[in-house]
Amino acid sequence: MDFETILKNRRAIRDFQNKEVPLSILKEIIQDTCLAPTASNGQPCKFIIIQDRNYLKKLSDESKKNLLDDLIRNPNLPSKQYEARLRDGQINLFYNAPCLVLFIGPKGLYSLDVDCGLTVAYFMFSATSRGLGTCWIGLGAHIRDKEILAEIGVPSDCRIIAPIIVGYPASIPAASERHSPDILKVVK
Amino acid sequence: MDFETILKNRRAIRDFQNKEVPLSILKEIIQDTCLAPTASNGQPCKFIIIQDRNYLKKLSDESKKNLLDDLIRNPNLPSKQYEARLRDGQINLFYNAPCLVLFIGPKGLYSLDVDCGLTVAYFMFSATSRGLGTCWIGLGAHIRDKEILAEIGVPSDCRIIAPIIVGYPASIPAASERHSPDILKVVK
Repeated sequence: MDFETILKNRRAIRDFQNKEVPLSILKEIIQDTCLAPTASNGQPCKFIIIQDRNYLKKLSDESKKNLLDDLIRNPNLPSKQYEARLRDGQINLFYNAPCLVLFIGPKGLYSLDVDCGLTVAYFMFSATSRGLGTCWIGLGAHIRDKEILAEIGVPSDCRIIAPIIVGYPASIPAASERHSPDILKVVK
Repeated sequence: MDFETILKNRRAIRDFQNKEVPLSILKEIIQDTCLAPTASNGQPCKFIIIQDRNYLKKLSDESKKNLLDDLIRNPNLPSKQYEARLRDGQINLFYNAPCLVLFIGPKGLYSLDVDCGLTVAYFMFSATSRGLGTCWIGLGAHIRDKEILAEIGVPSDCRIIAPIIVGYPASIPAASERHSPDILKVVK
């Protein structure tokens, strides 16, 4: 697929066909992410694939519960804007997607967030080039129950950075609004 | 350009032709980065373009000095592996590139690192599609002198996340080694 087409047409997808994503395709996409640049070529991201919709609802409930607990302790958190969604028992943070890929990495690594951001971009482009849609569900990262973490295979020295839902889009939304770039200065 | 070609052939470029990058092309690339997804569509990255090689040497010296000061206080920092390079007065962290783009953003923003990682990936892909080479110079972000920060236009409430050098490649290195992806678990 032409790069400009992907660049211009990738969207955050939250509405999926009732169609599984073959594991072989997920593995191809994850293989592509290995080409992402990372600090000192550290390639710190590890992956967990979850293809069970019922289990995803359980993970959504766990993350919502923890975010609400956090808000009780500190009502000034950025997640405050999502409080009504978090309190709504009907809402699945993962939009009933057929698949979730968790990007995880070593807790103490200074570069993990930027490394993961770069790696997720590769994932999103590679998925788009295969006709798949993705969305980074930041609210879905707050899984803390030790039993659940063990069930899904998160090692105790790792943390979840990016929960990315994946599936075949049922509908593709219009592009969300973007402001012009803030170029603060040109030094010549 | 075909996406797969870009995906497979993007490299970290540290060897540049003696050829300026037109400002209009830099602006096009930065415009493309506005399409990157960011947390709650916050689009927090701001940009500073530096096209003066002498000034880049000054920024390199400033960052090296601060990294060495940090290492005296804490010899266990990840930058320890680069100490010899930092002590070598001949070495320019920015590889004498014709251009540096600084990605900066609000100091307190929780999502800034991942937002910036995603945005830089867009920058790198867009630059590659235009025949340009880039490299994220993590060591070059440690600019702290207030006069210099004011000269280059970094607001006091912002920090530098990603210094990205840009130019026309003089040579393209072989792909650096990558390990196979660590897929820890598939939950079905």
